Order: sequence, then structure tokens, then C-alpha cells
Amino acid sequence: MSPTLKTGLSFSALGQRAQPPTIARLMSAALENPTLLSLAAGFTDSSSLPLPAVSAAVNALVGQKANESLQYGMNQGRPLLRKLLAQHLAQWEPDLVDTAVDQRFFVSNGSQQALYLAMQVLCEPGDIVLVDRPSYFVFLEMLAAMGVRAVSLPVDETGRLDAPAITALLDRLAQAGDTRRIKAVYLVSYFSNPSSRSLFEGEKVALAQSLMTRNLIIPVIEDAAYRDLFFSVRPEARSVLTVPEWSEFPKLYLSTLTKPFATGLKVGYGYCTDAEWLARMLYTKGHHDFGTANFNQAVLEHIIADGGLERQLTVIRALYQRKMHALHDTLLQEGLPDLGWTWAKPTGGLYLWLKAPDRVDTGLDSAFFHHCITAGVLYVPGALCFGDETPRNYVRLSYGVLPVAELGEAARRFVQVARGFHV
Amino acid sequence: MSPTLKTGLSFSALGQRAQPPTIARLMSAALENPTLLSLAAGFTDSSSLPLPAVSAAVNALVGQKANESLQYGMNQGRPLLRKLLAQHLAQWEPDLVDTAVDQRFFVSNGSQQALYLAMQVLCEPGDIVLVDRPSYFVFLEMLAAMGVRAVSLPVDETGRLDAPAITALLDRLAQAGDTRRIKAVYLVSYFSNPSSRSLFEGEKVALAQSLMTRNLIIPVIEDAAYRDLFFSVRPEARSVLTVPEWSEFPKLYLSTLTKPFATGLKVGYGYCTDAEWLARMLYTKGHHDFGTANFNQAVLEHIIADGGLERQLTVIRALYQRKMHALHDTLLQEGLPDLGWTWAKPTGGLYLWLKAPDRVDTGLDSAFFHHCITAGVLYVPGALCFGDETPRNYVRLSYGVLPVAELGEAARRFVQVARGFHV
Repeated sequence: MSPTLKTGLSFSALGQRAQPPTIARLMSAALENPTLLSLAAGFTDSSSLPLPAVSAAVNALVGQKANESLQYGMNQGRPLLRKLLAQHLAQWEPDLVDTAVDQRFFVSNGSQQALYLAMQVLCEPGDIVLVDRPSYFVFLEMLAAMGVRAVSLPVDETGRLDAPAITALLDRLAQAGDTRRIKAVYLVSYFSNPSSRSLFEGEKVALAQSLMTRNLIIPVIEDAAYRDLFFSVRPEARSVLTVPEWSEFPKLYLSTLTKPFATGLKVGYGYCTDAEWLARMLYTKGHHDFGTANFNQAVLEHIIADGGLERQLTVIRALYQRKMHALHDTLLQEGLPDLGWTWAKPTGGLYLWLKAPDRVDTGLDSAFFHHCITAGVLYVPGALCFGDETPRNYVRLSYGVLPVAELGEAARRFVQVARGFHV
Repeated sequence: MSPTLKTGLSFSALGQRAQPPTIARLMSAALENPTLLSLAAGFTDSSSLPLPAVSAAVNALVGQKANESLQYGMNQGRPLLRKLLAQHLAQWEPDLVDTAVDQRFFVSNGSQQALYLAMQVLCEPGDIVLVDRPSYFVFLEMLAAMGVRAVSLPVDETGRLDAPAITALLDRLAQAGDTRRIKAVYLVSYFSNPSSRSLFEGEKVALAQSLMTRNLIIPVIEDAAYRDLFFSVRPEARSVLTVPEWSEFPKLYLSTLTKPFATGLKVGYGYCTDAEWLARMLYTKGHHDFGTANFNQAVLEHIIADGGLERQLTVIRALYQRKMHALHDTLLQEGLPDLGWTWAKPTGGLYLWLKAPDRVDTGLDSAFFHHCITAGVLYVPGALCFGDETPRNYVRLSYGVLPVAELGEAARRFVQVARGFHV
């Protein structure tokens, strides 16, 4: 080959912005210590994953000679599955009035793909999305790769949305000429990743009012991925789908069958109130993959219709509550609060969200993080979970993966490190 | 709500460019006649879909208590599956020398997602991708939605790549100042959708030489989705992966387990020779879905390791050959060649690619198309399969879906309509 030739490989702006995911850096850190106990991954409990139920559903498909389950399916998702998902949503939202509700549902590769599609069809580089504080870090990374700016909705010292501060933020954005760039608001409103908080209905009402007073009737994306994972009491707050103050807003409600049933099947879903928004997401999904694996949807249809989703939820709600206690109780017993750390005891979800004393930096490059690796415990630095004005003293711990005994040991290791940073 | 409020829903350029997929228009057309026989859909044969093999694999996972198969997996795909796919590729490309071949493989939601990722990280709106002529129409629709211009590689009257005309095209693009916008070349090189042609190795050699003489060492994407689907003789041409003239080009080789095994499992794969290109696709896949359904990959690992893929291929190669004959032979017997129609008899793949007399317009809005609907037969208008300079007199017929008896009837209906357009 002539020495004058050079490779003509160049990347798009999106390709250039794309960065290695944080989870990859955490995984590399984990390799430094093979006896490490990971409280980092947002994985689900492996022992409870419903392999027999999946196998029974597959055998039922064989019995029905349902070869079509291995054929291509519809881009939007299987009609029966969408109908079953609509019925599931109706249990949560009895006030929802929509005669064609299942036609506004779509099935995606986890709720993650639905988030991606929503952002792709709404946002250009330089646009703004309002996000909760803290927020889901994979979503924040996705926005960064798209060149979209995440702006946090201000919260008060208890973590609640702060309506006057939100109004002030919208005014500041208006003064900066940025109002037209605000394309959506994103809320992880039930047992949030990472905070485990659920929004009160009053917070949702006040947010809608703040947006309306500034004429911002923008699309809202409510990520309800953890809504089914309450421990014993269903969260009371209605979704933005039925809170009257949100009635005029275009709404996308997202959830998933991964966390409540099986992450390995990778089936999520969305319900979109705006026909044009939905259509453009579906056209784009047609280009991504023209439909989520039809077989997985057929299996899940069988399982949901047979009551298998509810049975699994009954099992894992009690299980995650026990696991939460194993972690939470040990942190308490070992004296973490005496070291100035605070957190709220979750009532659902997969995470503890710890606030360290202000002076303790818990970031990926911090001494605290490396001491934890050395001590054999891994966590997600809270700094990854903020769209802007990032504090350094938060920690996300997941009790999803480790068995109860190891959760206790991981908690002891963690408190031991925290004690070394206590002054 | 105040009448001064208006919805602040607006779409990105990509969202605005997204159009309903052609297949949706074909489906709507199909609804006009419920007795319609469809030769349009590129679906696979349902009767042969290997549901018992899938069920056996799932039961084996249960026997192994392989709960991890229902857990999240790796973004890049399961390591064992990638190793098995590397071994499968090695059967086709014995000259491939790559000590880390499985590390350059990745698993995607069908090969479609891999195509999407490749284009996302390479192309901006206004860029150019060189495509074969005819080419895969879902890819062409995807490029249109991305604002990317498809420019066809010229072919001679036999359909072969025309090297002098390609060089002339590159010179015209250079004169127009467009050379820097050419970001990739895309080839469906084995039993192409839609033409069923396989490129001769000499065509690949000449194309590489044309590009090199113009200093265009651009990424090449070889879509080998149908390579496994030869009827009785393996296609001889090596892939661009091992044709020496392509050695300096960044290469992405795509294929799939959908068409050769089960479309409903939606597992495709890519092998990329350029580490940085691969990394940027994987980062972006992390934002799309952070990994293709792990369960489906575990099932396919078991099936491939057990010889199930090769057994299924043995079945469907013979089946599709019979089905091709049912369609092809009936078109012959009914006298379609006497009406001035020509086509090549396929040696693999799922399609017949018919050329009508020049004056016969077969487009979606044509009288011919509507006469076919009325007569009860549906096809894909060939005009959809061209990136530019679109002829109107081609037709794609698929023999994938219909059983043999119905293929004969569909062929008779088609020839009857063609006879009505004979002058």
C-alpha cells in the first residue's frame, strides 16, 4: 500500500462525544480486588430469578405449536402484551381514561431504549432537559453523548422539589435566552435510582404549576421502572398521567418487566399520550431494530396472563425488603450515623442513598473510594448522579445482587472505611 | 388551562425526518384484501422455526440452574457466544488471522442495530454512504432519517460492480467537493436483499482498488446476513475481511442468527477490525440498551455449542431451495419470460428479483401494484431498493413466508396481472 494513503475513518459528533460508561470504570476497579463485594451494580437478585416460570411458559408455547413466537413481530410490540401492560397500568392508575390505551403502548429493549428514542426525536445538541436531583446516571451519560445539557430541578434540604427555586431557575434560563432550548422534563418518580425517594403528588402538582406559569408545556417523561418494587405499601402518589395539573402536557410514562421480573429478557415499555411523539419514536425504533425480540414478548404474555408476574413480585418484594434490612441495619449497628452519615430508610426499590459529611469526597478518584476497594467493597459514587452542581459526598449502595450474609459483611467493611475518614 | 398556553412539543431534525416505514404502507395495502398472498415480507418460514430446539435449550438452562441467564449481561455480548460466533466465522474465512477475534465481536438486536450504531458514530446529516445497487431498503430508509445521502455504486447491465464507472463517480464527487463527505461503503454481498446476487471476489477487489486510487480508505460495512443461507453450494468469494486489497480499510462485518435460526430471538452480531470504531459503537449501544437480551444469548450459546445451528441450517437450506423452485418454476411455467420479464435464478437467500419491461411501473402508487392487490398478491416495489437514479420496473418477491402450495398460487396471480400489462 502506498505510504501516501491514510485511513479515512472519522467520527460523527455523537461518535466523538461517546465516552466509556462509568459502569465500565467501576468494573475495572472491581478487578483490582477479586474478593470485593459489590454494592455498585444495579443488578437484580440472581437466586430469585424466575427461570422455572420462563421454562414453563416456553413449554406452553411448544404445546401450542406457537412457532410464530420465533417469527418477527410488530415494531410496536405484540398486541396482547400491550393489552396486558395496559391492564397492569390501570391497576396503578384507576383514573386513567383512554379508550385506546393499548395502542399508545410500545415495547422496547428495556425502558432504556424508550428513553433513548424519546431523547433522539426531541433533542438537538445544545438543548436542555430538566432532570431530578439526583437522577439516573445512565440517562445523564446518554444526554452527555447526545450533547444535551441536563439541568437539575432544585430540591430543598429534605430532597423535595423546591417550587420557588424551580420558578427562579426557569426565570434564569429565560434571562439567558434558553427557554426555547428546554425540550423535556425527566422524573424518576418512584423509588428512584439512586435516591429510593418517591415524589409526593404535591411535588408533581407544584412542578406542573411552575412550568405552566412560565408557559412551558413541554414533554414530561416519568420513569416508573421501580414502581412495582414497593416492599409492603404501594406508593400513593398518582402518576403525571392522571394528576390533573399535568393534563395538557405531552406525557411519556416508562416502565419495564426487567426489574420486576427478569432483567435478562430485556423487555421494557412506554405509554405515550401524544400520537405524533409516539409515531416518531416508533419510526426511529423501526430503524434501530424494527421490534423487540418477539419470543421474549410471547413468553411474557403467557407469564402475565397466568399471574406469574404478580407471583414473582410477591416473592421479590419480601426478598428485597429483607435485603434492604440486612444492609441498612448493619450500617446502623456498626455506627455509621455516629460518623455523621445520614440516609432515609427505603420503602421500595434497590438502593440506599447515603450522604456523607460534607468534607468526605466519595468520587471515583477519591481516597475514600480507593480505601473501599482495598477493604473489599464497591459502591457507585453519588457524584455520577447529578446533572450539574455536583456534590462530592453522596454514595449509592445497591442491595440487589449480594445475598443477605454478604450484605452484612459489605456494610461492615464500608463502615470501617468511613470510620477511618472520621475526624 | 389558560388559552395562552400552547404545547411546547417540538421535534429534533432526526425526529422530523423520520417517516413511516415502507413496510407499514405495504401492510396497510395488504389489509385491503384479506385473501391476499404476500410475497412482500422478508419473514422466514414459520413451519420450520426451531421451537423444540429452543425449548430444549431453555430446559437445559433450568437443569443447570443457570439463573444468570435471566440476569443482565455484558453490553458487548456474552463471551462464550462471541467465541462461538468467531468459530463460525472462521469456517467461512479460514484466512482470517486475528488472535483476539472474539474480542472484536459484539452482539446486537439483530444486525439492524449494528447497522444503526455504525452509521450513528460515523455520519452527520449531509454525509454520503456508497451503497450497492440495488440495496437493502430498510438501510436506505435509515440513512434518509439520519439525513445521510445514499449514492449507488454503478453496475453494468449484468448487475456487476462497474469499476470504470465507479472511478468516474468518485471523480464526479471529488469535483463537487464531496469527497470528504463520503464516510463509508455498504455492501450486501451474499444473496443480497433484494437481488439475491452474491458479489464475485473480483468485484470486491476492483472496488477496493478504485477507492484506493482515489485515496478513499473509508470504513466498509459488509452485510452478510444471508451468507449462511446458500442452497447447496457455498458462495466462493471471500469476505472483505480477508481479500488482501481491503487489508488497510476499517472493516465491519455483520451477520445474524435471526435469518439462519430464529428471527424472533433478535440476535445479530458484528465483527469490527477497528478498535476505536468498535469502542464508539459499544459506548453508544450502552446508551441504547446496555446489552442485547442476555437470556436469548444464553439459549443460542447452548444451541450453537450443541450443533443446533448447523442442523437448522441443513433443514432450511433444502426448504428454501424447494420454496424458491415453487415460485420460480411457476413463474416460468406461467410464461412470465414471454412477457418480457427477466430474472436470475437464486442459489441462496430469500428473494427473486424481477426486472419488468421498462414501460411497466411497479411502484407503490402504480396501476400494476393495485392490480396485484386486487388479484390477491403483494410484492415489494423495486423502486424502494435504490439509493438514487431509481428505476421503476423492478419487483422483489420473497418465498420465505408462504408454504409451497400458496407460492404457486401467488405466482399464477402475479403472472396473470403481468399479462394484463403486456402490450
